[in-house]
Amino acid sequence: MRYAMVIGLHADKVEHYKELHAAVWPDVLRAIRQNGVRDFSIFLKEPENLLFGTFLHEGDYTEAARRIDAEPAVQRWYQLTEPCQKPMPHRAEGEWWSFMDCVFHTE
Amino acid sequence: MRYAMVIGLHADKVEHYKELHAAVWPDVLRAIRQNGVRDFSIFLKEPENLLFGTFLHEGDYTEAARRIDAEPAVQRWYQLTEPCQKPMPHRAEGEWWSFMDCVFHTE
Repeated sequence: MRYAMVIGLHADKVEHYKELHAAVWPDVLRAIRQNGVRDFSIFLKEPENLLFGTFLHEGDYTEAARRIDAEPAVQRWYQLTEPCQKPMPHRAEGEWWSFMDCVFHTE
Repeated sequence: MRYAMVIGLHADKVEHYKELHAAVWPDVLRAIRQNGVRDFSIFLKEPENLLFGTFLHEGDYTEAARRIDAEPAVQRWYQLTEPCQKPMPHRAEGEWWSFMDCVFHTE
């Protein structure tokens, strides 16, 4: 199943965010992969500074996300990335990135 | 190569857009596939009404898009979908959907 999520980026953090994502820490990549997240991309639209993330995951994504988020490297990574991000004004309780609804898919 | 694009949706057209995309015309799907577009999804974030489209394409996407857009069925489809959509305030010349830059990818 393909997921998509959206979040804003503070204008003064765009370059820093790009630099971080040009060299994501191996322990963060490992946590993602070991928990079944595949084909994960993040796209940026400037100057509105919107980030879209999309990935594949089969099975219980909520549980996978819990395990990923619990990794010490991931927690340190979030300490760098979260100050760059600006959550959507209307987001579900407990969300940081906002998950989106799939309205169309074709193979 | 994975592409991503973003566009807004007029609030009063959200339900109509969903209905259209629950049953995309076979000729439109055929035009997409015959021109090499694969794994194409469109996601919606409400109530901000942002659409995020993402697909795979190998080769010359500009030329593929020209061929898709030239199909009569696709032109009729756009007559229904374009009035629903609200292009981004800052978009490249000639764009309708705004293409986004990939800042991160992992398999």
